[in-house]
Amino acid sequence: MKTLSVDLGARSYPIYVGSALLGQRDLFAPFCEHGQVCIVTDDLVAPLYLDRLQRTLAGFKLHSTILPNGEQNKHWQTLDRIFSFLLKNELGRDTTLIALGGGVVGDLTGFAAACYQRGIPYLQVPTTLLAQVDSSVGGKTAINHRYGKNMIGAFYQPQAVIADTDTLTTLDTRNFSAGLAEVIKYGMMADADFFLWLETNIQALLAHDRELLNQVVYRSCEIKAQVVAADEREANGQRELLNLGHTFGHAIEVGLGYGEWLHGEAVAAGMMMASALSVRMGWLTAAEYRRLGRLLERAGLPVKAPQALTPESFMQHMQRDKKVRNGRLRLVLPHGIGNAEVTDAFDAAALADTLAGKPL
Amino acid sequence: MKTLSVDLGARSYPIYVGSALLGQRDLFAPFCEHGQVCIVTDDLVAPLYLDRLQRTLAGFKLHSTILPNGEQNKHWQTLDRIFSFLLKNELGRDTTLIALGGGVVGDLTGFAAACYQRGIPYLQVPTTLLAQVDSSVGGKTAINHRYGKNMIGAFYQPQAVIADTDTLTTLDTRNFSAGLAEVIKYGMMADADFFLWLETNIQALLAHDRELLNQVVYRSCEIKAQVVAADEREANGQRELLNLGHTFGHAIEVGLGYGEWLHGEAVAAGMMMASALSVRMGWLTAAEYRRLGRLLERAGLPVKAPQALTPESFMQHMQRDKKVRNGRLRLVLPHGIGNAEVTDAFDAAALADTLAGKPL
Repeated sequence: MKTLSVDLGARSYPIYVGSALLGQRDLFAPFCEHGQVCIVTDDLVAPLYLDRLQRTLAGFKLHSTILPNGEQNKHWQTLDRIFSFLLKNELGRDTTLIALGGGVVGDLTGFAAACYQRGIPYLQVPTTLLAQVDSSVGGKTAINHRYGKNMIGAFYQPQAVIADTDTLTTLDTRNFSAGLAEVIKYGMMADADFFLWLETNIQALLAHDRELLNQVVYRSCEIKAQVVAADEREANGQRELLNLGHTFGHAIEVGLGYGEWLHGEAVAAGMMMASALSVRMGWLTAAEYRRLGRLLERAGLPVKAPQALTPESFMQHMQRDKKVRNGRLRLVLPHGIGNAEVTDAFDAAALADTLAGKPL
Repeated sequence: MKTLSVDLGARSYPIYVGSALLGQRDLFAPFCEHGQVCIVTDDLVAPLYLDRLQRTLAGFKLHSTILPNGEQNKHWQTLDRIFSFLLKNELGRDTTLIALGGGVVGDLTGFAAACYQRGIPYLQVPTTLLAQVDSSVGGKTAINHRYGKNMIGAFYQPQAVIADTDTLTTLDTRNFSAGLAEVIKYGMMADADFFLWLETNIQALLAHDRELLNQVVYRSCEIKAQVVAADEREANGQRELLNLGHTFGHAIEVGLGYGEWLHGEAVAAGMMMASALSVRMGWLTAAEYRRLGRLLERAGLPVKAPQALTPESFMQHMQRDKKVRNGRLRLVLPHGIGNAEVTDAFDAAALADTLAGKPL
């Protein structure tokens, strides 16, 4: 097991990455000894890991609730199921929630913890690659709104992240690839060496090489923790860089209907669109653009927006992006591999060509 | 106009109390100059004050949305109306919300600000006595849940509180009295001199004496600001004292159905129940209990729980109170006038007698 820390003063917390962590009672115990504990998971993860975690936590005052799986359920009604469960069982402010599952379970549970009785503690126990490398770290919690993805939420940090990489072995190929999108994003936005390392090791990763998986989760968490520590609440522009590909990607997710494309798939296509715009602006070479495309394709990810979405539909959804200021769209755009900037200094025509899918 | 401050480090903010503040553009301008502004009000307050505030803020990028009035609307569906309005109008993170209205508008708007795009700034512009003396100060925001009052919310501080005491002249008698319940609570829990001052001046207050109204709002905000500064997130027991009468009171509100009794009315009866329990425990004299009862009655407030509520119903609702720890109910109970404590050291039998309404 390896440990790293998200340094946020009084809100600092550890990330544990390694094998067989779901069985390590001593990792969980410090957060379960006071008051009640409630595991929140979904109907895909529960049959795989709920029983194991319950056995690990035997003896604590333990409750569990199971939500319907999928991004299409990341809305108020599912959040309210958590609240109703907690209230019906008279669970008080001294309750700790444990999010056992992927990004949707983590976002819902974290936001529930942020709001229930105005805030109770929670743990992130991510079981998908996407959740382990990205969504479980940094305290971004949210639900979707019919008018926009992750529009209702809170910055609310967990007490700890416990990432058992063994759980990745039960992940289907499509979800594994979706997680790789965020991994490739880290290379693209912040670390050219890591990007190169991924180009070298993508085959072995797809074959679930244990050692490489641990490395990739650890390095991804390290990059994310660093950015979050420097800009917890997206106040100085640094954290926004993690949104590379996400403005285009969110438009895809909302436009097609939540759950049609996985989040990681939308981010992959979104990164290609952001990169195409960068090429048009002269901030990325065509060769770099092709390198990104090749890596995403090898990872099993889409590199083009779905044909069903018109440029008008893209613009409508993107105009509601959280990075809009004074009505002006701001985008995270690559400047070479391993570097990105948040900017509104792109040509409208170049964006229009990109949304229309014109060849470079 | 008088100014005081809620001292919370980086989250400190001013409270302005005085006459004709709704027309003072310079009070609002510092919070409206960047990005968009959205006034949130309700259908009772809008015809009275929306136009005036809109004229004061003419020239800023101004939007307004009007919610249905009343505690029975302080739930998710109304909150979602705010979110939908903001998203439909493509209002971004650089938007400031202005809560123009009573406690319900303030709680809804504050919680909307806490959650919209994970947090945007907001101003409290309270127009009821209850909101001016209590709910607009301190950053407690929430919506109700069918299983419990204020169960879903956030600690989220406003940028400023602007309390125009002229608005109290349009308040109906019942709502004015409801506000006095929280004022009397401050005397009872923290300030025997203020309690005595209220006994002397209650008639003049009910006659809307301008100078006394300004004094009562200012002194109430002063007490509240001090408690909040010492314990922003109810972590060390101090802020819980502000909940005197509220555990019983919330049970009345939920038990009868939100909106049947006004919050202040339920708090008045709740304070009498808490005081009866204190008398039974020997922490309050029967004479002090009668003094509280007389003052509440003179203020036009109920001093007995509604007959419709059984002791079982009380216990069921109180067991979900936010002060419950390890399943044990904790109550704020007076120890003499001007003093209170949070405790679980009361006799179950004394509580049962109190809930049953047995005479002292």
